[in-house]
Amino acid sequence: MNCNETCTRRGFLKNTGLVAAAAGITLAVSGMPKFATAAAAKDGPTEKWPWPYEKLDPAVTAEIAYNEWYRAYCGAAVINSVFSQLRAKIGEPYKSFPVDAFLFLEGGVSGWGTICGSNAGANIVTNAILGPRIAGSETGMLMGSEIMQWYSDAKMPVFLPKEPKIKDELIPKTVAGSPLCHISVGRWMAEADKPLASAERKDRCARVAASVAYRTVELLNAWKDGAYVTTGAIPAMKYKIQAQHNCTDCHGKDVPSPPVAAAAK
Amino acid sequence: MNCNETCTRRGFLKNTGLVAAAAGITLAVSGMPKFATAAAAKDGPTEKWPWPYEKLDPAVTAEIAYNEWYRAYCGAAVINSVFSQLRAKIGEPYKSFPVDAFLFLEGGVSGWGTICGSNAGANIVTNAILGPRIAGSETGMLMGSEIMQWYSDAKMPVFLPKEPKIKDELIPKTVAGSPLCHISVGRWMAEADKPLASAERKDRCARVAASVAYRTVELLNAWKDGAYVTTGAIPAMKYKIQAQHNCTDCHGKDVPSPPVAAAAK
Repeated sequence: MNCNETCTRRGFLKNTGLVAAAAGITLAVSGMPKFATAAAAKDGPTEKWPWPYEKLDPAVTAEIAYNEWYRAYCGAAVINSVFSQLRAKIGEPYKSFPVDAFLFLEGGVSGWGTICGSNAGANIVTNAILGPRIAGSETGMLMGSEIMQWYSDAKMPVFLPKEPKIKDELIPKTVAGSPLCHISVGRWMAEADKPLASAERKDRCARVAASVAYRTVELLNAWKDGAYVTTGAIPAMKYKIQAQHNCTDCHGKDVPSPPVAAAAK
Repeated sequence: MNCNETCTRRGFLKNTGLVAAAAGITLAVSGMPKFATAAAAKDGPTEKWPWPYEKLDPAVTAEIAYNEWYRAYCGAAVINSVFSQLRAKIGEPYKSFPVDAFLFLEGGVSGWGTICGSNAGANIVTNAILGPRIAGSETGMLMGSEIMQWYSDAKMPVFLPKEPKIKDELIPKTVAGSPLCHISVGRWMAEADKPLASAERKDRCARVAASVAYRTVELLNAWKDGAYVTTGAIPAMKYKIQAQHNCTDCHGKDVPSPPVAAAAK
């Protein structure tokens, strides 16, 4: 694959026809190519979608996430910033969701640096509330994907807490270009010249969780209003392999081409 | 960081003192360095740990996961292979866990190629059943981490289904060296010369889900018997950044050193 054009945000959007969508023009979700054949969902008591939702204040949600980070870290902080409010406003099925079990999302899943826990938490929130595509709608998956793209492109952290534990000027903003914890934190650490265990790095990640929680609620509120137009996409559809858009970051100029047709064997 | 020694499985174990543990000698989990300060868990009705567990048949579980892959894909397949049986044997809190919402784990989270959904699903299972470390035990997190290491090192797929949809000889085995979907699937596709959309690639991923489900139940059963000795570790503790053990795969010889002490600013 020649990655020079396609392996950028702009190139990806251009090639998938999503530039119009990103500019705010409606993309019919049902027009997305199917990732696989649909099938019926199971029928646990919480497996009926969408879950009831009431609009939340993004800034209030972000403050909760910021403080929750210091208790349960990025993934659980994002989930609980939304679900704790919906437990109080609505009750079930939010009360029965074991939010704290998702503490392990910290550090890109138990310190392995894979998907940033804030992104994982946001995807859990959108997919738990809107449901899986086998239950009839791809919106939850595409909203989660949109958040990962926004995260990758944003100068993070976006959100400034009201009562920061570390002064704002000590927390620089960096662009990850990726939804991965390793790259997101690594680029920030290089810019800030602060180690993993520093108070500044921790506060940066708490602010990232808050930023993602804010964005997630903005999108959920738009959906509740019937005004949500997704810019989310499934990268595997474009690249013919499950992938980010930053191929050259790891592969350099020699981006391999995936097999595109079954070989006769 | 000089990665020549530390960025290998053996070097990692050697440097963290886990060679003895990997060899089967007991490592006290409480002796692991803490990733952060413990705090109290919240008290939703399902947030009491450990959840009740009854030993399952690993082979039966793997067969369920293999077939569930074709309905709900890797992450939900691994979760449901365990939880569907525990819903029948025990009931709550498994009935209220919205397994199908985790379909989005497919393709390394909605086709982005981050953590393999089978690994994500296994971590959800171990952490939901054993609980987060802020509830008193690190075992769920370390068991999940152990599964990711096993996944990275294994010739995948390990499990052979009783009634395969594709003949065994058409599914080669490859070593990912990583818990990421992109690398795991990419190396298999290169070896098999089969595209993402091929029936062989799909069956390979269904078998990977089955393999991970099998291993997860083996470890849970050992825990239930009081015989579980973890070989899991938190890579961020070693590398001073959230990371895998394959630094040179992306960085080549120029593996950057993370900041190790707060700079005066």
